[in-house]
Amino acid sequence: MGEKEYTIRIRFWIDETEGPFLGTGRVILLERIKEKGSITNAAKSMKMSYRKAWQLVEDMNKRAKSPLVEKILGGKNGGGAILTKAGEEAIEQFYNMENEIKMMIKEKAKQMSF
Amino acid sequence: MGEKEYTIRIRFWIDETEGPFLGTGRVILLERIKEKGSITNAAKSMKMSYRKAWQLVEDMNKRAKSPLVEKILGGKNGGGAILTKAGEEAIEQFYNMENEIKMMIKEKAKQMSF
Repeated sequence: MGEKEYTIRIRFWIDETEGPFLGTGRVILLERIKEKGSITNAAKSMKMSYRKAWQLVEDMNKRAKSPLVEKILGGKNGGGAILTKAGEEAIEQFYNMENEIKMMIKEKAKQMSF
Repeated sequence: MGEKEYTIRIRFWIDETEGPFLGTGRVILLERIKEKGSITNAAKSMKMSYRKAWQLVEDMNKRAKSPLVEKILGGKNGGGAILTKAGEEAIEQFYNMENEIKMMIKEKAKQMSF
């Protein structure tokens, strides 16, 4: 008794009224698009099909207040993609929220008496 | 723009240094044991095998500071089970934590600007 130490793991997802909007996987996809400059290369880096990544981007763009990813026509590989300001905000605010939740539950974990 | 409404779903799990300790599924099992008075009937009510429920109880008892479930030998169905004070506390503190996290993220969801 008394020697035990608890930690808490969390996962969270943001939903829009029409369905899922943003979770850890989608945020990582946004980060990769920013890094790689295209949906094709972002998908490859996550071992995700282009089709799947494209659908996720379409879905996020539709559910966000304003689009998170902007597709750029032309260029090599049939065009690249960049994050909009809203896309950058989405990544930042998602991780901020995650950190705040983690800090809060770290405190809570210390208070558990069972 | 501006018409979107976001909600956040969360899941969390409490781990002890040796492995998983408590999550929503295990807390529901504790509640059912309290309600039904035996591991057998608790397992049945969750369509879980007795063996699985028994293993979860053993695991929780081992990882908690003090056991959460007490097995009572004899009686019908080969003995019942009751929650200890620590078991009652575990349920209560788990749901309190869940509620506090939910309230916090509800506030956060309102602040999201993307």
